Amino acid sequence: MRDGKKISPAVIKRLPMYYRYLKDLIEKGIHRISSKELAERMGITASQMRQDLNNFGCFGQQGYGYNVEVLYEEIVNIMGLDRPHTVILIGAGKFGQVLVNYPNFKDKGFNFIAVFDKDPTLIGTEVNGIEIIDVKFLEVFLRENTVDIVALAVPGSAANKLVLTLAKHDIKGIWNFSQNDLSLPENIIVEDVRLSDSLMTLSYKMHEKEVLSRAVRDFW
Amino acid sequence: MRDGKKISPAVIKRLPMYYRYLKDLIEKGIHRISSKELAERMGITASQMRQDLNNFGCFGQQGYGYNVEVLYEEIVNIMGLDRPHTVILIGAGKFGQVLVNYPNFKDKGFNFIAVFDKDPTLIGTEVNGIEIIDVKFLEVFLRENTVDIVALAVPGSAANKLVLTLAKHDIKGIWNFSQNDLSLPENIIVEDVRLSDSLMTLSYKMHEKEVLSRAVRDFW
Repeated sequence: MRDGKKISPAVIKRLPMYYRYLKDLIEKGIHRISSKELAERMGITASQMRQDLNNFGCFGQQGYGYNVEVLYEEIVNIMGLDRPHTVILIGAGKFGQVLVNYPNFKDKGFNFIAVFDKDPTLIGTEVNGIEIIDVKFLEVFLRENTVDIVALAVPGSAANKLVLTLAKHDIKGIWNFSQNDLSLPENIIVEDVRLSDSLMTLSYKMHEKEVLSRAVRDFW
Repeated sequence: MRDGKKISPAVIKRLPMYYRYLKDLIEKGIHRISSKELAERMGITASQMRQDLNNFGCFGQQGYGYNVEVLYEEIVNIMGLDRPHTVILIGAGKFGQVLVNYPNFKDKGFNFIAVFDKDPTLIGTEVNGIEIIDVKFLEVFLRENTVDIVALAVPGSAANKLVLTLAKHDIKGIWNFSQNDLSLPENIIVEDVRLSDSLMTLSYKMHEKEVLSRAVRDFW
């Protein structure tokens, strides 16, 4: 991102890991760490780690290593976690309700400010102190409030219809839990969480390992 | 995986997408598709798609394209979805309960056969018809049953202790929902699902876009 340069997906994927490990070090009262030791804890090479961090202009000091608090603050800034984000949930089924109740998001400045559903048995009830609103009032809400992120926990067919509505308003990001790939205008960023995909990936890796070890056996 | 060759993570990540799109085509009654059209639907290039599939020895026919059912079956076999998998859940909190209730996993042959927790108020109650068992009986269960996958939905500190137990038994895969990186022996495959990480990644991408567009503005 330095000088407007695009960062590779592999590096982006490791950023939350840096965040977690540095936070853990702070909680353990560790103020200074060598790139070698931090990399070892994270299970990557020291050179990989230095490359990752150099992308963002975070350089350790020769013979000193990294100041943990400083590096943590830099990672927080890089990830945009130095400011709070307003989040709304659409789809207050069991899964959606778990999201709103999860303490780990609020800790990082992600604040659920409203919850929407179309189910009349849910409308008017509360999740974690937030009233569930009829989704027909979604557009009114979006006009009157600043919403950074929409967590979308509705079935795929409903998701694509909602996206048309969201695209008309100034939504910056969608956290997509529906199984569909969303068709979105370029100005909205989407992060997909697909539990079925991750379970299938696990199955693939287990199967691949089996095939590979069979190949090795056959070879000998 | 052909000839025991390792497949790149990017290709592996796209496999569930092939699965989903091909399944959708079958449901729509489409029996034949050109690589160009399938790739377009999936938002990748036709050459990318052909490369991906060639890895596994799936070749389309010049002038005909792909037979949808045949390709779907091949993907199913590649991912190991041609056989059922037994799954147990450890951690029957709200999130764990959502997993057991999710119909999409059973469809793909992932069958929850037992649920464990240490909370006495949960033990003896049922989730989706499965009784919650005291986690102190976990090892007995693992000795007496074939378990392919353990879904781990417990806090990080508990997860690392459980892993020591799981490693002693013939568990092939862990679907890890705890926030910790697990320290595992090589013979167990882990697939991590970290909701906080994905939310932070979304925040990063939103922030990156902002910084990039500011850089472009400053340049002009």
